[in-house]
Amino acid sequence: MSDGDWRAYNFSAGPSTIADEVLKTARDELLDYRGLGASIMELSHRGPDFMEVATRCEANLRRLMQIPDDYAVIFMQGGATLQASAVAANLIGSHQSADYIDTGHWSQKAIRLGADQIPVNVVASAAGSDYRSIPDPQTYQASPQSAYLHITTNETIHGLQYHRIPKGLGVPLVADMSSDIVSAPIEIQDYGLIYAGAQKNIGPAGITLVVVRRDLLQREVDSRWPAIFRYKEQLAADSMLNTPPTLSWYLCGLTIENLLSKGGLPCIAALNQRKATLLYDFIDQSAFFSNFVELGSRSLMNVPFDLADPARDQAFLEMAKASGMLGLKGHKARGGMRASLYNAMPIAGVEALVELMAEFERNS
Amino acid sequence: MSDGDWRAYNFSAGPSTIADEVLKTARDELLDYRGLGASIMELSHRGPDFMEVATRCEANLRRLMQIPDDYAVIFMQGGATLQASAVAANLIGSHQSADYIDTGHWSQKAIRLGADQIPVNVVASAAGSDYRSIPDPQTYQASPQSAYLHITTNETIHGLQYHRIPKGLGVPLVADMSSDIVSAPIEIQDYGLIYAGAQKNIGPAGITLVVVRRDLLQREVDSRWPAIFRYKEQLAADSMLNTPPTLSWYLCGLTIENLLSKGGLPCIAALNQRKATLLYDFIDQSAFFSNFVELGSRSLMNVPFDLADPARDQAFLEMAKASGMLGLKGHKARGGMRASLYNAMPIAGVEALVELMAEFERNS
Repeated sequence: MSDGDWRAYNFSAGPSTIADEVLKTARDELLDYRGLGASIMELSHRGPDFMEVATRCEANLRRLMQIPDDYAVIFMQGGATLQASAVAANLIGSHQSADYIDTGHWSQKAIRLGADQIPVNVVASAAGSDYRSIPDPQTYQASPQSAYLHITTNETIHGLQYHRIPKGLGVPLVADMSSDIVSAPIEIQDYGLIYAGAQKNIGPAGITLVVVRRDLLQREVDSRWPAIFRYKEQLAADSMLNTPPTLSWYLCGLTIENLLSKGGLPCIAALNQRKATLLYDFIDQSAFFSNFVELGSRSLMNVPFDLADPARDQAFLEMAKASGMLGLKGHKARGGMRASLYNAMPIAGVEALVELMAEFERNS
Repeated sequence: MSDGDWRAYNFSAGPSTIADEVLKTARDELLDYRGLGASIMELSHRGPDFMEVATRCEANLRRLMQIPDDYAVIFMQGGATLQASAVAANLIGSHQSADYIDTGHWSQKAIRLGADQIPVNVVASAAGSDYRSIPDPQTYQASPQSAYLHITTNETIHGLQYHRIPKGLGVPLVADMSSDIVSAPIEIQDYGLIYAGAQKNIGPAGITLVVVRRDLLQREVDSRWPAIFRYKEQLAADSMLNTPPTLSWYLCGLTIENLLSKGGLPCIAALNQRKATLLYDFIDQSAFFSNFVELGSRSLMNVPFDLADPARDQAFLEMAKASGMLGLKGHKARGGMRASLYNAMPIAGVEALVELMAEFERNS
């Protein structure tokens, strides 16, 4: 067991790297939170100390994302997987169905789980491009009776990301933003509801963020849908209808403060652009490494790439590990490699990866 | 901000005190888990390092609780509140209803949430004793068509606990054991299903334990019930149907190892008995402090008590805080004081509390 500070470059797709400063603060406070003689995770969620953590977290998130007052912020458990069901159960109201865009693995999961709750229509799909490009958002047509139109803003496995979102749909836009939330500024008003598991850009796994336009909370929800996953009831209880995951919430708060201290989303977005450009530029000039996603749809968060000789995948992973780089193995649904470049990945990590790839290519 | 090791005696009812050794190990490993250069919370749940944490946690829990092979162990999110609904949704099958015992706040919540899913019957209640004693388990009669009979083994607010459980009911016994799990040895075979939020005796809030007899997983579940809260599907996915709360899971694992290292449940139970006896004995001889629960129903985990002069409540809490004791304020539903004596509360903490109470009484 080590108590050192050695940190690898961790390219894991999620749970994923967290800023060193966040972990160091958490470590410093782990046994004795601000002189109370107890860890934040040992305190009642209804006591003043944790309540302050929760309040500050929301206020900072509102500042970071510029969330207007007519949008509510709710923290839940269950991850994006539960939200894929919850969105359908909470927003169907008196509508007949909901519309979905298929851009890959995660949107397909949302479609499948949504369909367990309500009738769903897939109104556009990336299948035609073999999941190499996002279908043009300007072409999306929502059904007039639709409760919402659902997109997944970033697909971690195939490495696709929306760089323009659909507008003027006539129905609320619902976005699973788990893997690119707070990675760049967005216009909250373009969305009816945003949900995100925390474990990519906001904190550890075990807490889920929902940002929802308040008027959508008036839609009626089936009485069998669990109370802790009703937006309206959780909001009325300040996200404490039951004991919330306080430790994860605290870590989200530290992460959000960290992003603000780094200049907020405009600065974060510029850094993310630099990191992705560095890696894609290297891949595009390489004769050995390749990425097949169309230029306008490439993800800044997850860069899947292949070696010209897949027999050398294992050697590449071993060389990466020996050089202090983790989590580069691609998802089993796709194979190959994948570098996830979430907010907390420093530029130095991407530079080290590119250097490693160049060296590996020279020796191939 | 302090990075010291000062630790108060934290009597919070939950989230609650965690063993110092557990927090110290977590702190030592927080930036660099066993030389990997990453925190456990930054690693993929499907990678070998976290998988080992999960596997070891289950193996140690099975050893600690002596869980036989015909019982499955599942980790979920959503706490006992979600389980109160999940039990009903998962176990109703082709049965007509389920039976419940009302022993106070938490069992009433289970009844209310169960009733959102299925027809429920309350077959015994502590209301007759004004919640001062557990209705005699030998008198419980389950309906033959009942899917299960539900009890809450410990009520944190009124301080009631089962010291004998109902047997030979003819239907599976389901127990919400959130606030006294792993506080003493039990016979798993007496139960059909046990559920527990972690935040009292197993770890931080945000993870929930389910121990269920495997044959009960054959009951059919409504297709609208969320997949991540279906026991059978989560079990088939090793509790990783979606990204699990890895950090909380890891901390549960450390806590379970800590309990084993302290001699397991027989030793833990003896310590818990000593702690509770110390406090109840003091209260019973005191002319100033009182507890109204009948002797055979008193909780070893949560000891509510009242001052003869409620106007002095605030003075008592302030004196406690000045003496390094936290979390003694009673639940708002009951008022007064409450000392929670979960596993991680050392005997020295109870001794300090009794000393404080004696001093306060002398000065009253």
